[in-house]
Amino acid sequence: MSERTTVVIQGVESAGEVPGLEALAGEASFRCANSLGALRNALPGAEVLLGWKFAADDIRHAFECADRLRWTQWGGAGVDAALFPALVESDVVLTNVRGVFDQAMAEYTLGMILAFAKDFRRTRALQRERTWSHRLTEKVAGTRALVVGAGSIGRAIARTLRTVGIEIEVVGRNARGGDPDFGRVHGSEDLDRLLGSADWVVLITPLTAGTRGMFDAARFAAMKPTARFFNLGRGALVDEPAMIEALENRAIAGAGLDVFTEEPLAAASPLWEMENVIVSPHMSGDFRGHKPAMAEVFIENFRRYRAGERLVNVVDKRLGFVPG
Amino acid sequence: MSERTTVVIQGVESAGEVPGLEALAGEASFRCANSLGALRNALPGAEVLLGWKFAADDIRHAFECADRLRWTQWGGAGVDAALFPALVESDVVLTNVRGVFDQAMAEYTLGMILAFAKDFRRTRALQRERTWSHRLTEKVAGTRALVVGAGSIGRAIARTLRTVGIEIEVVGRNARGGDPDFGRVHGSEDLDRLLGSADWVVLITPLTAGTRGMFDAARFAAMKPTARFFNLGRGALVDEPAMIEALENRAIAGAGLDVFTEEPLAAASPLWEMENVIVSPHMSGDFRGHKPAMAEVFIENFRRYRAGERLVNVVDKRLGFVPG
Repeated sequence: MSERTTVVIQGVESAGEVPGLEALAGEASFRCANSLGALRNALPGAEVLLGWKFAADDIRHAFECADRLRWTQWGGAGVDAALFPALVESDVVLTNVRGVFDQAMAEYTLGMILAFAKDFRRTRALQRERTWSHRLTEKVAGTRALVVGAGSIGRAIARTLRTVGIEIEVVGRNARGGDPDFGRVHGSEDLDRLLGSADWVVLITPLTAGTRGMFDAARFAAMKPTARFFNLGRGALVDEPAMIEALENRAIAGAGLDVFTEEPLAAASPLWEMENVIVSPHMSGDFRGHKPAMAEVFIENFRRYRAGERLVNVVDKRLGFVPG
Repeated sequence: MSERTTVVIQGVESAGEVPGLEALAGEASFRCANSLGALRNALPGAEVLLGWKFAADDIRHAFECADRLRWTQWGGAGVDAALFPALVESDVVLTNVRGVFDQAMAEYTLGMILAFAKDFRRTRALQRERTWSHRLTEKVAGTRALVVGAGSIGRAIARTLRTVGIEIEVVGRNARGGDPDFGRVHGSEDLDRLLGSADWVVLITPLTAGTRGMFDAARFAAMKPTARFFNLGRGALVDEPAMIEALENRAIAGAGLDVFTEEPLAAASPLWEMENVIVSPHMSGDFRGHKPAMAEVFIENFRRYRAGERLVNVVDKRLGFVPG
C-alpha cells in the first residue's frame, strides 16, 4: 500500500491532540472532526475512523456519510456508546483499546476497598475538625471479593485483589474451568448464590442488552449487609434507584461508584451526600499517560491495517465486547 | 511447675479485658493494675508482667516494686515506650507482639499510597460540593518505594507494595545480601542516595537513640519534590518542624502520618489543615481482632515460660528491638 490512508479523527481539532500520530505522517492523511457537522463532511471517502472523544454520539448520527469506511478504532474499553444498529449490520470492523485501563482500574478498585477498610473518609472528616479519634480498622486479607466481569479489566482487578490476600471469585458470561488465573470462572447462573458470601462486589462487565440493569433490588438484597458494592463498568448495569434504596436501608454497607446512569451525576442525586458512598467522576482508568497508551493501540492497529494483517482488539459487534 | 504463676496485667481493671486468658486459669493467678498506685501494689512477688496499655509510663515508675519479676510481655511492636534504664540493666526478659500488626499496617500503607495516587481526598472534597470534576490519576505500578526499616512490619509493607508492581528498596540498620525477600537490604549509609529516587518513602524503623530524629531537614531536602512521605513508626523518628516546612515549601509533595511527636496531635498543629497530609490517629495496626492476636502471643509465651522453653519475640534491650 503506497497511497496514504485517509483517517478521520473524531473529537479533536488537530491530529496533534493524539500523541504519536506524527509517526504515521507518511502513511496516513488525517481529517479532524470535532463536531457532528465536521464529521459528516470528513467521513466521505475515508477508510479509517478513530473515535477519540468518549462521550459523543456523533459517530452514530454521521454514519450514513461513511461511504468507504472499513475500520473504526474506538478510544475506550467499553463499546456500548460506540455501537449502533447500522454499525453492527455493516462490514466495518470495530476495535477498542482493551488492556490500556486494566492496571489503573485494578489499582483504583483496591484503593477504594482499602479506603473503606481503613475508614479513610472518616479520618479525613475528623482531620478537618482537628479531632484525634482512634478507631479499629478492617483487615482485607482473608475477606472475599466477587468480581462480576471476566474481561481484561475484571481479570486485572481480581489478580490485584488476590495479591493482597483477598479471596476471589469471578463471574463471567459462561461458566468454564481451566482458567489460567482463577481455575474456575463462574457463569451468571451462579451470581445470586455467590453474592451472599462476598464482602466486596465489583461490577466490571460490558454493558449489553443482556447486562443492562443486572444489579437490581433482588441482587442488592442478596448481598451481605456488611458488603460494599463497586461499579467501574457502566451506570446502566445498575438499577440506580434500587441501589440508592439499598444504601439508605443499609441492605448493603457502602458503595464506590465511578460510573452512573447519567453522567455527570445530577446535582440532585442523593448519592453525593451519602457518607458511605464514594462518588468518583468516571476516572478510574484515566491515569497520566492513558492517551499515549490509547494512541499506541491505534498506531499498532494502523500498521497492521496497512500491512493487511489481523487487527488486535476486534469487538464482536453482536456480543458487544472483545471475546475471551 | 504446678504452682500458679502470678501475672500482673497493667492497664486493665479485670483479666477479662484480655481475650482468652481464661484458658490460663489453672496456671496463672492474675493481678490487674489500672493505675500507677495499683501497679506498685501488684508487682511485689509477681514473676510476669503483661503490659496491655500502650500509652503509659507507669511500668517505669513502678519498676522498683518488681522484686521477683522475670519476664515482661509488652502489648506493642515498638518497645521504645516500654524501655528504661533499670529494665535494660535488669535480668527481666522483655518480649513484644512482633508480627501481629504486619498485615494490617502493610494494607494501611498501600491504602494511603493509593489515596494519594488516585486523588481520593480531592474526590471526597468535590463530592461534598456535588461537583463532577474529572482528573487524571497516577498509576502506582512502576513507581518506586523506599521502605526504611527491615523488621517484620517493614518487610510486610515492602512485600505488599511489590505485589502491586511498585519497585522496592529496603533500608535496614546494616547492609546485607541474600535476603529471601529482597535480595539486598541496604544499610543506613545508602539512605541519602536512595531517597533521591523514591516516589514513596515509608518510615517504619524502631525508635532508638540511633534513629531519633533521623528524618531531618536534610533528609527531606534529599527527597524528590513529587515524593510522598509516610510515617508509621514513631513520631520522634522525624524532626516534625522540618517536615512541616518541607510540606509547606513543597520540598515534598505530601505525607501520610499515623504517628506524631506528641500524641494526640496538638490541635494547634498546622498538619491538620494541610490538604496534602493525612493525619491518622496512630491506628494503622489496630485491626478488629488485634487484641485477641496480641493476647495469643502472650498465651503462647506464657505456655513456653511455664514449660521452661525459649520465649518468642525476645527484645534485645540494648538494640531496642527483636533482632533478625
